[in-house]
Amino acid sequence: MNYIGHGNKLIKEQIMDSNESYIAIKSLKKIPISSRAARECIDLAYGFFSPLEGFMNSDTLNSVCQKMKLIDGTLWPIPILLDMDRDTINKNNLKIGDQIILSFQNQPLALLDIEEIYQYDKQKIAQAVLGTTEEKHPGVKMLDEWSDYYIAGPIKLVNEPIFQPPFDRFWYTPLQLRKIFQEKDWECIVAHQTRNVPHTGHEWLMKGAWFSTNANLAVERLKTGILVSCIIGPKRMGDYIDEAILLGQQQLNDSNYFNQEIHMVSLVLWDMRYAGPKEALLHAIIRSNLGCTHHMFGRDHAGVGSYYDPYDAHRIFDKIPEGSLNIKPIRVLEWWYCPVCQEVTYSGLCGHTRERQNFSGTMIRSIIQDKVQPTSLLMRPEVFQVMLESADKYGFGSPFCNEKYLKQRQPVFRLFPINS
Amino acid sequence: MNYIGHGNKLIKEQIMDSNESYIAIKSLKKIPISSRAARECIDLAYGFFSPLEGFMNSDTLNSVCQKMKLIDGTLWPIPILLDMDRDTINKNNLKIGDQIILSFQNQPLALLDIEEIYQYDKQKIAQAVLGTTEEKHPGVKMLDEWSDYYIAGPIKLVNEPIFQPPFDRFWYTPLQLRKIFQEKDWECIVAHQTRNVPHTGHEWLMKGAWFSTNANLAVERLKTGILVSCIIGPKRMGDYIDEAILLGQQQLNDSNYFNQEIHMVSLVLWDMRYAGPKEALLHAIIRSNLGCTHHMFGRDHAGVGSYYDPYDAHRIFDKIPEGSLNIKPIRVLEWWYCPVCQEVTYSGLCGHTRERQNFSGTMIRSIIQDKVQPTSLLMRPEVFQVMLESADKYGFGSPFCNEKYLKQRQPVFRLFPINS
Repeated sequence: MNYIGHGNKLIKEQIMDSNESYIAIKSLKKIPISSRAARECIDLAYGFFSPLEGFMNSDTLNSVCQKMKLIDGTLWPIPILLDMDRDTINKNNLKIGDQIILSFQNQPLALLDIEEIYQYDKQKIAQAVLGTTEEKHPGVKMLDEWSDYYIAGPIKLVNEPIFQPPFDRFWYTPLQLRKIFQEKDWECIVAHQTRNVPHTGHEWLMKGAWFSTNANLAVERLKTGILVSCIIGPKRMGDYIDEAILLGQQQLNDSNYFNQEIHMVSLVLWDMRYAGPKEALLHAIIRSNLGCTHHMFGRDHAGVGSYYDPYDAHRIFDKIPEGSLNIKPIRVLEWWYCPVCQEVTYSGLCGHTRERQNFSGTMIRSIIQDKVQPTSLLMRPEVFQVMLESADKYGFGSPFCNEKYLKQRQPVFRLFPINS
Repeated sequence: MNYIGHGNKLIKEQIMDSNESYIAIKSLKKIPISSRAARECIDLAYGFFSPLEGFMNSDTLNSVCQKMKLIDGTLWPIPILLDMDRDTINKNNLKIGDQIILSFQNQPLALLDIEEIYQYDKQKIAQAVLGTTEEKHPGVKMLDEWSDYYIAGPIKLVNEPIFQPPFDRFWYTPLQLRKIFQEKDWECIVAHQTRNVPHTGHEWLMKGAWFSTNANLAVERLKTGILVSCIIGPKRMGDYIDEAILLGQQQLNDSNYFNQEIHMVSLVLWDMRYAGPKEALLHAIIRSNLGCTHHMFGRDHAGVGSYYDPYDAHRIFDKIPEGSLNIKPIRVLEWWYCPVCQEVTYSGLCGHTRERQNFSGTMIRSIIQDKVQPTSLLMRPEVFQVMLESADKYGFGSPFCNEKYLKQRQPVFRLFPINS
């Protein structure tokens, strides 16, 4: 288990006690923030982004863009920024030294100490982090939609999020996860990032990563665990609904496709930037803060379109200075189904390349779309079942995001209503 | 690829040129040796036992028994000895400083410079190397059958063995293998030791080892190879015949169950001592001399009966001083068939322990004994086919050693007939 955290420091949880919170909420200005910024407040406060304690100032942003480092030299690939529009700043007369309450869902969420208010060229950020300024890139688009000013400063939660079913079952803070890993007596923990209801190819990505982590250890095998770490953030039409992803992953455990002693499912709040290799590094950093020792990276991790080579996110781990991460990458190609071997096999392992059957996400989606059950070699029947149940319960009839889900879905977390 | 060899030295091949050989053979006494000693002469001469250049003297034997080291500190777990009976020594008036020709199959094989003639307590050897002196242990039995004196000294081949079909196709010296690895551009080579016609469980031992060797590398995956290294030595009733082992392993390659670019089959002459953990170390040393970088060790490697814990051969690699081997162990538990997952799975991976179906060698044997074809999930049909062909061609009708095979089998290698 990785006890250290990224940059050799796991920050303390930044949660104000209820008395202090109450006074702050009563007295300070409340400024609404976006759902992305709210998620990042939560990540910051619990240490998912450790050693960061708040939103970045211009010096740090500059350093991240130019050198992929924080000011103290710690590796950091993607800016964590609180954007705010000029009107809000002016109307509230915000200035350096002010304390403000960041609110979300019309409720207070966090207290921010304003350290700096600045502007920064978005094109520069896009070019540095995403390697492109093309509007088509969803990371560029996200940046473009942000307001033009950035507010820097440390944050503290004044109101802890209350995760709603079924998310509550999978929500763990870094400290909670570390405690669980210790109780489970896991020495190595392999993180598997996902935004999918699992098919057997996904299953083998995890199984292979688990196996290879064990292969250099001696006999006591069950001391390695797999942490499925689902990315929960904004959804697009056609994505799997979040509930089906989490419950489908969990079903692999409940149905014993994974030994329950070596596998657990959790979630991380994060708005994908699709920054390919740089985002792979950030994912490694987050999972390092969760206590993971290894991180599985498959093909085209966090990529989009053809902006990155499918294995850029593998190569970047050879390019960063040694010792800059407390987590090791497990870099894998593809698992696919070989009808001659009659098994799931790995790129390059067998020679039946002509017979190769890829696990095509698109193909599986089209099967499921028609409510046809895929062969159990493709998707476990119990996973299929739970996915259909999630569709009925949470997805307005579909396991894929439709307009109704995007507009009317139940929130992932709620904030406690505080009268101020 | 491991360019170094064990003890950071790969010895030169010790082969005399034909003129020198001719003179030596003409003039020196010829002393017949056992088939085991003949195999070890060949191993010594080609560098399989590098840095050893000959049979051990009493100081080395002592050091190997007491400290598991050669005199210079190089790790060495099992004595390599030339036994000789008193009568032969007396009749030929053998003494220190003599040169003699060791002969086999009534032909000259090697020249030996006698460095020492000595006795040594066999019980001490047995206890030190095998951890037991019980007659039931086949390694103890082998020692007991040896003559009472040992002749030490360096050897050189005067007559290179000519491997017979089908062995000739799989015989490579360490130098030849290294050249092939270089041509294939393999950076990592995983050795898989076997004495079996492969079933799918064996296949996955290799596939898993290959996968885990690759998992820490970046993108260029086909730079890792698997060397199947079949142990060829004395056989017992009911063992698979050597020809079926080699041809069955090769068939996995010919039928593309292994991509031909990542897999090859070879042989090593060796009389198993069944020394469990210490023999695992010797196997690692031999494969290190072949140029391998990794060695797969499964359950109960080189064990017998209940003399060793099934994972003693895993644990010993944590007990030897760091840097004493130029090859890394890949320690694996068991692959087995899970009827719920409908796939070959690994110990601890899935939770269907009640449904577990082991690849029982005994069960597969009994199926094959009756000439029934096992399901293709258990044994590849092409492997089954080639095994039956081997049975007809080499095994007197059986893929398992019967009395006829043990007595009348074709030799693995022949020596060129030299009139002297």
